[in-house]
Amino acid sequence: MHAYVYSNRNVYLSLCPARAWYQAAQRFTGDIGSKLYGVSGHCVMIGFADLLPMTDGDLATMTFLQDVVDIMLGYIVKSFDRSTKVIDFQYPNELLQMNNWELSDEPETLDDVLVNCRATLEYAVKTAHPRYFNQLSTGLDMVGLAADWLTSTANTNIFTVVLLPFCSLGGAISNMYAMLLARFKMFPEVKERGMASLPRLAAFTSEHSHFSIKKGAAALGIGTESVICVKVDERGKMIPSDLERRIVDAKQRGLVPFFVSATAGTTVYGAFDPLIAIADICRKHGVWMHVDGAWGGSLLMSRKHRWKLNGVERANSMTWNPHKMMSVPLQCSALLVREEGLMQKCNQMQASYLFQEDKQYDVSYDTGDKAIQCGRHVDIFKLWLMWRAKGTVGFEAQIDKCLELSEYLYDKIKDREGYEMVFNGKPQHTNVCFWYLPPAIRCMEDGEERRRRLHKVAPIIKARMMEYGTTMVSYQPQGNKVNFFRMVISNPAATFEDINFLIEEIERLGQDL
Amino acid sequence: MHAYVYSNRNVYLSLCPARAWYQAAQRFTGDIGSKLYGVSGHCVMIGFADLLPMTDGDLATMTFLQDVVDIMLGYIVKSFDRSTKVIDFQYPNELLQMNNWELSDEPETLDDVLVNCRATLEYAVKTAHPRYFNQLSTGLDMVGLAADWLTSTANTNIFTVVLLPFCSLGGAISNMYAMLLARFKMFPEVKERGMASLPRLAAFTSEHSHFSIKKGAAALGIGTESVICVKVDERGKMIPSDLERRIVDAKQRGLVPFFVSATAGTTVYGAFDPLIAIADICRKHGVWMHVDGAWGGSLLMSRKHRWKLNGVERANSMTWNPHKMMSVPLQCSALLVREEGLMQKCNQMQASYLFQEDKQYDVSYDTGDKAIQCGRHVDIFKLWLMWRAKGTVGFEAQIDKCLELSEYLYDKIKDREGYEMVFNGKPQHTNVCFWYLPPAIRCMEDGEERRRRLHKVAPIIKARMMEYGTTMVSYQPQGNKVNFFRMVISNPAATFEDINFLIEEIERLGQDL
Repeated sequence: MHAYVYSNRNVYLSLCPARAWYQAAQRFTGDIGSKLYGVSGHCVMIGFADLLPMTDGDLATMTFLQDVVDIMLGYIVKSFDRSTKVIDFQYPNELLQMNNWELSDEPETLDDVLVNCRATLEYAVKTAHPRYFNQLSTGLDMVGLAADWLTSTANTNIFTVVLLPFCSLGGAISNMYAMLLARFKMFPEVKERGMASLPRLAAFTSEHSHFSIKKGAAALGIGTESVICVKVDERGKMIPSDLERRIVDAKQRGLVPFFVSATAGTTVYGAFDPLIAIADICRKHGVWMHVDGAWGGSLLMSRKHRWKLNGVERANSMTWNPHKMMSVPLQCSALLVREEGLMQKCNQMQASYLFQEDKQYDVSYDTGDKAIQCGRHVDIFKLWLMWRAKGTVGFEAQIDKCLELSEYLYDKIKDREGYEMVFNGKPQHTNVCFWYLPPAIRCMEDGEERRRRLHKVAPIIKARMMEYGTTMVSYQPQGNKVNFFRMVISNPAATFEDINFLIEEIERLGQDL
Repeated sequence: MHAYVYSNRNVYLSLCPARAWYQAAQRFTGDIGSKLYGVSGHCVMIGFADLLPMTDGDLATMTFLQDVVDIMLGYIVKSFDRSTKVIDFQYPNELLQMNNWELSDEPETLDDVLVNCRATLEYAVKTAHPRYFNQLSTGLDMVGLAADWLTSTANTNIFTVVLLPFCSLGGAISNMYAMLLARFKMFPEVKERGMASLPRLAAFTSEHSHFSIKKGAAALGIGTESVICVKVDERGKMIPSDLERRIVDAKQRGLVPFFVSATAGTTVYGAFDPLIAIADICRKHGVWMHVDGAWGGSLLMSRKHRWKLNGVERANSMTWNPHKMMSVPLQCSALLVREEGLMQKCNQMQASYLFQEDKQYDVSYDTGDKAIQCGRHVDIFKLWLMWRAKGTVGFEAQIDKCLELSEYLYDKIKDREGYEMVFNGKPQHTNVCFWYLPPAIRCMEDGEERRRRLHKVAPIIKARMMEYGTTMVSYQPQGNKVNFFRMVISNPAATFEDINFLIEEIERLGQDL
């Protein structure tokens, strides 16, 4: 019942109508895959042992992988469909009962594996859904996805010959690397002799910065107490005069300031620290200037918004996560370092079995000895392929649209009854932070009781959103501010209508609170 | 010319014969894809903007992704075909000219993107090829691959609700984490106060251990000088009496021993350190025992070979990379930690915007605050799905077969003319280390000149292998031993014939040297 095309031992699967319609019919009845291998006339109980590298495993492999692809294609189309749920929420203990999670001695059939695949996607949060606003990284880019599939298929390691002039790293590790480099630059002896040979160091970052700065300091043996928090203004931007005051103060206490991490796009407020003023202070005091642009760095792709990062060109290093604002599939995070060769000097151990200098090609293309990790997934191909497909103008349009949407949301709710903004003024990034006040709270007097009640509103609305599966948006407290919604927009699928929907949904789910 | 099946807004692509045969015909002429979008009658110059989330982008998306899948399926079948090259080797500067790498302002068409995809796979090293023996991680598992595609498609972050009782990390980072935990366990104050508050520490590992232990010590502010190298026997195993001597010696010099990293499967010799004796010493001196089982840990899946890790059950932590010996697609690396809750205590920073304690479900399932990283690719799903498909017995059979092949190689060359083993006795893992001596060197007297010539043999043979693309095997020097071949077998596709082929190929390419 199959038609297969053979060419020089390369098999290309093409489906004859009988099979195609059979599959389609099975899908309509929801009985996908369970009898899929029966119709081929080969074997109903086909298993992994029938796949490549088994001799003549081509056919079974093609059929199995094509089935997986069909499941994924169905999921993708569904993800973008507003009439589907953002999440089919199940409590973890329920989830445990909905899929067969058991690992056993004996193999399962491929049919069972396909059942697992389907169940996994069924209960996954649809991060590509146009109404999923819950995280900084949302959306699913089709070219990026294709590139990620290809990367898995090539299954090559990143440690030799990659062709881009920076190092790609995992998430918050980039900020830790920057701190590592700054310390090594000032005290190269730390590599061999450790922190015991150094004076007490001091690092500086704003009180709204990402927690990875403190995590990095703990891991690197610097200690979280050596991370000095600089005050922010009411918009969440670092106050340069407070930075300088604290640097001077640290010096007077005998500490050695070695690292300032400015944030371009804070996680909650989306604030951009004033980089020019910070660069001046760093130069004056001889301190390494790092810019954590994990979230905001992508605005450099936009001619309209890149001014927000003015001064970044003077930084010693910068973190940039294209997987956040640019919809590159997780994960894709880069650390850009100004001084060439420093990364290598800091991390190389010259393992002769890996990085032979008698290779027949120019080993300066190899990246392995620059990083702490050895075998690593190739995260950079998807960014490159997306860039090819979109061009810089494509990324720019995508980013500009997200910012336009967030401005639309801001304009819509800033004077709307029942809303209060967490900070005043147009957001600099797509972060819109606000409280929704149900009617019963609106008329209450300001005070502890009102705060206590308001604190519970966002969590309840969020829980209801997840149970209905209609939309998802994040919330959190910050300092002495009770729980508020933090809307972020990074999903290219989102439209003005989706913003309208979010507002209606918040009001629908929260009006009785 | 297309037949599409619509169901409740879910589109499933099924190809009508006209298109299927048209594609097949194009493939025969090598003109794959370049006119693919022309035949649909829609638009020849289709681009990323026509894909989802564009309204009605379903069709273009399906067609594009199916084309990518076809490219991958062709590549997969080719990868397992012994008549194809392991690598179509090009020098990096040549590679630069063979693909259009330019990133430009304007987008490329999807046709161009497909050309890029094809070119990328064409020049990739085929790590799944049955004659690729170059690295610890080889082979391409079809279920693992399907799981990785699925993971990319779900594109969810790992930081909330995963259901496995350990933390998955990137490569050598696992060893660094173990060191971080050991330090925190002994001196919890290091998290806040840094290394300045601590006495000088000492870590111990064998001189054949992985360089990540030293890299970790450098990064954590401990310093590479504090990593004390323990002697190994002629088989590359740590000598326990030397470990104890050095621990006692370090104490006498005022250092505080806090960490021993034993290796289960060294990178070059494949040696297993004697874990029981090491566990006794660690207990006696109150030192954290870590087992770096990145390469050898998978032998625990084999009833025949697991005795080599006897004693591991007494370790405080263990690194295990299923992406090496078990063919899980890159990357999949785990750190197993005995003490529950320690990972969390060591790394948590309680970022309220991420890990709200007022979530409506049991947050103990969330893993985010246990790790240094935040947004991370989900590496564990592919291991789980493969385990389901193979059962423990499937992994066991795969591992036993690789060890059988390496024993076959060892038996074949140990007394063969022109070969010298780097160490005597049957290898414990799949590592077989040997010199090939071309006839001209065999008759030379032992001495500096012979060593100098032998040192060049492996690099030249390897370079020729890569140019012919017939097979790939690694080489390196170790200590005062000149360059030798290090054969490793982790590819389930390899057979006895492939081992025979390797020997013939080495002799064919090396006899004139």
